[in-house]
Amino acid sequence: MNFSKTLENVKAYEAGKPIELVVRDFGIDESKIVKLASNENPYGVSPKVKDVLRGYVDKAYMYPDDSFYELKELLAKKYNLTSKNVVIGAGSDQVIEFCIHVKAKDKKVLVANTTFAMYEIYAKVFGAEVIKTKDDMHNLEQFLEMYHEHKPDIIFLCLPNNPLGECLDKKDVFEFISKIDSDTLVVVDGAYQEYASFKDSAKKIDPKELIDTFPNAIYLGTFSKAFALGGMRVGYGLADENIIKTLHKVRPPFNITTLSLKSAITALGDEEFVNYSIEQNFIEMKRYEEFAKANGFNFIDSYTNFITLLFENTKFDSTVIADELLKRGVIIRNLKSYGLNAIRVTIGSKVQNDRFFEEFETLIK
Amino acid sequence: MNFSKTLENVKAYEAGKPIELVVRDFGIDESKIVKLASNENPYGVSPKVKDVLRGYVDKAYMYPDDSFYELKELLAKKYNLTSKNVVIGAGSDQVIEFCIHVKAKDKKVLVANTTFAMYEIYAKVFGAEVIKTKDDMHNLEQFLEMYHEHKPDIIFLCLPNNPLGECLDKKDVFEFISKIDSDTLVVVDGAYQEYASFKDSAKKIDPKELIDTFPNAIYLGTFSKAFALGGMRVGYGLADENIIKTLHKVRPPFNITTLSLKSAITALGDEEFVNYSIEQNFIEMKRYEEFAKANGFNFIDSYTNFITLLFENTKFDSTVIADELLKRGVIIRNLKSYGLNAIRVTIGSKVQNDRFFEEFETLIK
Repeated sequence: MNFSKTLENVKAYEAGKPIELVVRDFGIDESKIVKLASNENPYGVSPKVKDVLRGYVDKAYMYPDDSFYELKELLAKKYNLTSKNVVIGAGSDQVIEFCIHVKAKDKKVLVANTTFAMYEIYAKVFGAEVIKTKDDMHNLEQFLEMYHEHKPDIIFLCLPNNPLGECLDKKDVFEFISKIDSDTLVVVDGAYQEYASFKDSAKKIDPKELIDTFPNAIYLGTFSKAFALGGMRVGYGLADENIIKTLHKVRPPFNITTLSLKSAITALGDEEFVNYSIEQNFIEMKRYEEFAKANGFNFIDSYTNFITLLFENTKFDSTVIADELLKRGVIIRNLKSYGLNAIRVTIGSKVQNDRFFEEFETLIK
Repeated sequence: MNFSKTLENVKAYEAGKPIELVVRDFGIDESKIVKLASNENPYGVSPKVKDVLRGYVDKAYMYPDDSFYELKELLAKKYNLTSKNVVIGAGSDQVIEFCIHVKAKDKKVLVANTTFAMYEIYAKVFGAEVIKTKDDMHNLEQFLEMYHEHKPDIIFLCLPNNPLGECLDKKDVFEFISKIDSDTLVVVDGAYQEYASFKDSAKKIDPKELIDTFPNAIYLGTFSKAFALGGMRVGYGLADENIIKTLHKVRPPFNITTLSLKSAITALGDEEFVNYSIEQNFIEMKRYEEFAKANGFNFIDSYTNFITLLFENTKFDSTVIADELLKRGVIIRNLKSYGLNAIRVTIGSKVQNDRFFEEFETLIK
């Protein structure tokens, strides 16, 4: 059977190895496995959300309110916007897909050389050409140059950037967008913004200020990271009403589950848990920085809940390290497929990080 | 900002009114509302699934196993196929979207005049032209005629058909597909097949027989109806490995939630509940048939968990009836937007159906 030619060169996304797979492949006891590969919140689901969900599983047979009325109202209130500025996605991932679908089908997108893989995957799925900057990290001069040269329909800025962890300053981002024409959609992916703005207020992007200043910008947020609901698949886009109205045309009905909706609504009411998670994250991150220094390799200063350890100019090979750690039940992300001799490690809980350091040390000695 | 021209004529799907909205709009107490609008299973989540989910909410912070290994294995076993014949969607809805994306982008699809709205909506979203038969119900002679005239890339057969409830016989379906060329994808949407095959074995489509006989056919199944997980958004497609491999190219990672995956796996192990739901459904459906006869209007013989009541040649207007029922807290689906003076009512539990009959009677007296 023949299929759309657009898809011939599309490869599927490679997700972080789930614990089930490691149990299966290596016969390691599930309780012994430490997964630091998918940037999940190591402090687990907030106690409030757990309580509410347990009482709500009875509703799983019913479709959710497809208007997502309550969640949109709460997000609008949180960001001082109206619900007409909000679209809900199955993770902010799905909002990325919506953006490419409505704006860049068979056209062009511009991204950093090393950034969130889904920009490129969705772009290819929709037949768009992917233009990349030369530098791995976000370099706005290069972005501007490529913008003038290629006239992309969408520019993706990942702030902070996954999988490297670096983050541009807000003032530089605003200056950059001011130079972009109003028919180019600028996507500001803030999946890890809660972490970045905690660490350094110069990184903080206020969605209202962003979209009030630039009607061609959209801000993406997620419940998967600081809000600890990675498994529930809830994200959102915040933008001018005209953009949101168009994104809704490609949104499938009931695109988040009944329990996802309830969990996101509840999580928004538990800022205490979110703040605790973020504070702990940076306390534990310090230990990774010290560990790297002690063992003679570099790292990228991170504004997220993960850290990228660089093995260039060392005796270490990221593929060997990733494979050996996996055999010992520690799952991290090898960045070799990005052309880097580096690994990305989610900052886990104290116990999880202890385990990482311990296994890593036995490996390199 | 300019968007893809394809989207100019796209309208969003209108979902059944959720209970929250009726509470809000009419100030009716939530406990007094009966929702018979979205063909949810009125017997609620199976007790086994509830138990397992309650114990599993702690995992909501973790992404699911994106390979859906266990669920695919169980489905493969259930249908005597291999996991390479299985793709998982966020509802079978999403598999419809995948099919259109890979096969009919900017091309043509053929559907019955009155059938599941999402075929047309996804087709339009992907720029495909929608060809419809003349008759509301599935008429295979007309399908064949239109096929020869228009050479569609996908043909959708909804067996049984939503929102009308009728169902073609398996032998007629197989005879029809045998006349279709091997480069046309035939989608057999079996969302309500569990109900149809219980009522009449002549309607039963065995997925393995279907896809072994026709490598250009795909069978769609769902956990939303007989398996009582409408809110969890899990469905699947079963087809030849080559089709499945291509559909995976457009599948977003983590397209069902961690709790959805667990609930579907658990639901597959509770056939007893499914059988009970289906038996009760047809016992209660008899009451609707008698009610229609007693009140002088027709209905369509239904092979699903809903019934379509026809008000043609009566004094009743479906819009008035739907609105008046809504004010009384009974939510059903008006089919006026399909050009029919008819309503579609989900077969509820005994108590829910009692309420429908009671409110309907006060309305028409």
